[in-house]
Amino acid sequence: MDSAVVLAEALARGFTAYALSFRYGQRHGIELLAADRVAKALGAADHRTVTVDLSALGGSALTDDIDVPKDRSGESIGHGVPATYVPARNTIFLSIALGWAEVLGATDLFVGVNAVDYSGYPDCRPDFIAAFEALADLATAAGAEGGAKFRVHAPLMELSKAGIVRRAAELGVDLGITHTCYDPVVRDGEAIACGRCDACILRLAGFAEAGVPDPVPYATGAARP
Amino acid sequence: MDSAVVLAEALARGFTAYALSFRYGQRHGIELLAADRVAKALGAADHRTVTVDLSALGGSALTDDIDVPKDRSGESIGHGVPATYVPARNTIFLSIALGWAEVLGATDLFVGVNAVDYSGYPDCRPDFIAAFEALADLATAAGAEGGAKFRVHAPLMELSKAGIVRRAAELGVDLGITHTCYDPVVRDGEAIACGRCDACILRLAGFAEAGVPDPVPYATGAARP
Repeated sequence: MDSAVVLAEALARGFTAYALSFRYGQRHGIELLAADRVAKALGAADHRTVTVDLSALGGSALTDDIDVPKDRSGESIGHGVPATYVPARNTIFLSIALGWAEVLGATDLFVGVNAVDYSGYPDCRPDFIAAFEALADLATAAGAEGGAKFRVHAPLMELSKAGIVRRAAELGVDLGITHTCYDPVVRDGEAIACGRCDACILRLAGFAEAGVPDPVPYATGAARP
Repeated sequence: MDSAVVLAEALARGFTAYALSFRYGQRHGIELLAADRVAKALGAADHRTVTVDLSALGGSALTDDIDVPKDRSGESIGHGVPATYVPARNTIFLSIALGWAEVLGATDLFVGVNAVDYSGYPDCRPDFIAAFEALADLATAAGAEGGAKFRVHAPLMELSKAGIVRRAAELGVDLGITHTCYDPVVRDGEAIACGRCDACILRLAGFAEAGVPDPVPYATGAARP
């Protein structure tokens, strides 16, 4: 959902968009299928999926043998960070995006991080984004001689989940083609959002607060309001 | 060669070393076999190889269909950067190392970048390393609450290739088990360093300057001095 709205924002601002997804060892590839559907539907110029096998390093419920917490029951892994945190994930994803930007001759990166509903992930905060921007100019051939000035746009940073739902409506994004659930349930050969993981709970609460029904089905039957 | 000396440096300073290599779409896996050999020989506590398929993004002679320059003939890709530059590679590698460090509860990263013989790569310079250090504390759960202070050690930064050869001797590292060539030649079923790519030329010059014969064989027969 967040990625779809970020892509729509980049396009609305007149950018040609090169969409990037990651096969990073997550338990299921459903979000990658959804990403491809979204990139095509919204009109990205290209969409690539890069494999970066973070499961080789362990340490997260999203890539490791740790259970995905349900019904807000999850233990924190310390520092108030939930078990679904993937160590340094956004740093890794932005670094790879930076590499592609250099190949393309692009200097504007868009990322769907969001500090309000951020679930305690450290790499979703404004000062993280600012530090990455500073790094980007030093890290690249384009930036090395002052030729390029990289910008990391995080247009969802200050929005609540309800704000993202409303922004999607304004930009004409069909959220029915997006996928959010960390741990979908297979029913009649189809993958359905569990409705109980943190990602589902935050999404459903966002739709509820925005007063809009969520167009995707849930295994719990939830479709608030 | 550089990675082997960095590993030896970390061990000499009393660290328990977790060695990390990358299958990043390079043309050959010979350096990964060598990395495993080196990690075992020197006594790393663990050695993992993470796949990050940068060839999906193109743009480098090391991962793309661009020829590896030989005999110092290579065209620059602009900004004085050679064709063997892989966009944002060290940023990506350090980011993944940061993720593993977080899983391990480690705060010290070692990297074999080297500014003197750096061939024009922007992500081998001291200010790049400093910017990454600043990012690391903001990017991680461990650093988020001031709990951890990450350090990126680049012990080869100020050394020439000859200096690295001499440091290897001081630390007792057998450079005969290392692999440096970008584009090895297969001869009698064995992969032999080409002796003509930038990596071979820098290595050979380093041995020559140090007055030490290079223990690895070369397709060109070079074994200076």
